[in-house]
Amino acid sequence: MSIVDVEEIEYARRRIAPFIHKTPIETSLTFDEMFAFGRNVYFKCENLQKCGSFKIRGAMNSVIKAKEEKPLLKTVMTRSSGNFGGGLAYSAKLHDLNCYIVSPQRGSELKRHIAESYGATVKLYKSTFADRDNLIARVKEETGAEYIESSAQESTLCGQGTCGLEILEQVPEVDAVIVPCGGGGLLSGIATAMKTRKPDVKVYGVEHSHALNAKRSFDKGSLFIPEELPATICDGLGNTTLSQLTLDHILEYVDDIIPVPDEESVQAVKFLMYRVKMAVEPSGAIAAAVLMDPKNIEKYFKHCNNIVVVLSGGNFDFINKATLLQT
Amino acid sequence: MSIVDVEEIEYARRRIAPFIHKTPIETSLTFDEMFAFGRNVYFKCENLQKCGSFKIRGAMNSVIKAKEEKPLLKTVMTRSSGNFGGGLAYSAKLHDLNCYIVSPQRGSELKRHIAESYGATVKLYKSTFADRDNLIARVKEETGAEYIESSAQESTLCGQGTCGLEILEQVPEVDAVIVPCGGGGLLSGIATAMKTRKPDVKVYGVEHSHALNAKRSFDKGSLFIPEELPATICDGLGNTTLSQLTLDHILEYVDDIIPVPDEESVQAVKFLMYRVKMAVEPSGAIAAAVLMDPKNIEKYFKHCNNIVVVLSGGNFDFINKATLLQT
Repeated sequence: MSIVDVEEIEYARRRIAPFIHKTPIETSLTFDEMFAFGRNVYFKCENLQKCGSFKIRGAMNSVIKAKEEKPLLKTVMTRSSGNFGGGLAYSAKLHDLNCYIVSPQRGSELKRHIAESYGATVKLYKSTFADRDNLIARVKEETGAEYIESSAQESTLCGQGTCGLEILEQVPEVDAVIVPCGGGGLLSGIATAMKTRKPDVKVYGVEHSHALNAKRSFDKGSLFIPEELPATICDGLGNTTLSQLTLDHILEYVDDIIPVPDEESVQAVKFLMYRVKMAVEPSGAIAAAVLMDPKNIEKYFKHCNNIVVVLSGGNFDFINKATLLQT
Repeated sequence: MSIVDVEEIEYARRRIAPFIHKTPIETSLTFDEMFAFGRNVYFKCENLQKCGSFKIRGAMNSVIKAKEEKPLLKTVMTRSSGNFGGGLAYSAKLHDLNCYIVSPQRGSELKRHIAESYGATVKLYKSTFADRDNLIARVKEETGAEYIESSAQESTLCGQGTCGLEILEQVPEVDAVIVPCGGGGLLSGIATAMKTRKPDVKVYGVEHSHALNAKRSFDKGSLFIPEELPATICDGLGNTTLSQLTLDHILEYVDDIIPVPDEESVQAVKFLMYRVKMAVEPSGAIAAAVLMDPKNIEKYFKHCNNIVVVLSGGNFDFINKATLLQT
């Protein structure tokens, strides 16, 4: 088992700093009063990150590292349901590389367009893991691309962890953080950075409750990979699972994984849109939804006063896909 | 003709400061590159103001002043298609006053709910100015309420002007400002504050091009009041006209009024939602739309390098009324 060192995350931070935003922290007194019983809630706004999500952090770090190691590198590829594809496409463009993205048909069209707008070629697979893996193999063979993992790769994980270092600087009084979890890269990275630097901080992952892949893996201490992934409004989380690398970090550093039903993620999207005036996609708002259920406050945050909620992305076609949010 | 003094706006600022936000300035490099040919554009985010629009500034100032002058005051009222109603309701609640809002049936339901959520009673009229004035008279008689003008009152205008003082502090290099114009309170207030303190700054109003009430009044130098107001997606601007008070200030301090078609306001809403991740209502985004038409840059902003765009409000039911934006 290999666990990354926080020094590597610090190094990633210096490497990607010129290319990404240090995203702001926002607060909402209304949220604190309505949902957090007066606790201070801090939104870490990765929806305002370049390309609209945290994914650029890991993608940029992996692309720069790959180019350092192979100066003649011409092409990179990945699989992604959306935001990692956009982040990789942008990072590749900035470093004069071609980029291929293998993406599920049911993934977000908007996110596909973002990747294409940065010059990437998107290849679609139909549904199963076998379809996906066949397509990956074919693209790899045809293009000779260097494969960049969207979470199961140390350089990507370290890039995502830079978000945790920023949180520690921006909210030094933080005593708990809630992080969306799909492949687990952001959760692993943030947990590693924050628990190393401030061991008594609570770190919780959150996943949509239709699948519970991460929760089951966490509870039994070994990777649980289901046959198929159920549909969810959280398209950024629902098309992937943990890897051994991210599970190792999660077992080492994360306190628990909290399940949230889609309806509650949608309520969080609406609150953030109507009251905070911020566009956050359902996968990105799921960590806010955790606090909108008083049972969770009682169970996980009873003794926490300064809770950071990571709003991980904002890429959703709010206007044309609004019916999906009309509950 | 009576023109308010900038000292009165300074005084209003001190009066309302404990109750409102100093709203942030946001920027978008993508916007600057795509639309402003490299000029610096600064968004003054009144959509992030308390109650979701600048209107609270004038409402709060007028309510506090009214209570200072009449300590036994029990009830206030106004007419408003939306945001001034919300602002007045909130201000009244904070100062233990009852509040009545006379509102057009075709006004925004969401904005009505905001006013009601702060305890106001909303009374609806059908369509014409006569309907409106009859209803105002009736409510006034029945409740004995003090009538607060949503723009045609010096205390309201001074409150709105506080936004201009903030802009001068936040963007001292400003050489042009674009301000949405319905009743003209925000435009008059900002123009008075900014032209007095920095006479060479350009101040432009912007109104939706279906009616052009403000532009016609501006061009002929006297109040133009149409028989009826055409429908517009800009519900915050389209249900009112200039008053003599606001026209006087506009003639004194404003450089021109720029017309913008509804379709372009909608494009601005979409850009701000998808790229800046910010919820801005169509009336609130209309000033950004000005810069998205290159003809306007050529005509009005050729020699301007630092342009402030006032995003005046963010109260729109984006999810349930999304079809209105699907063009």
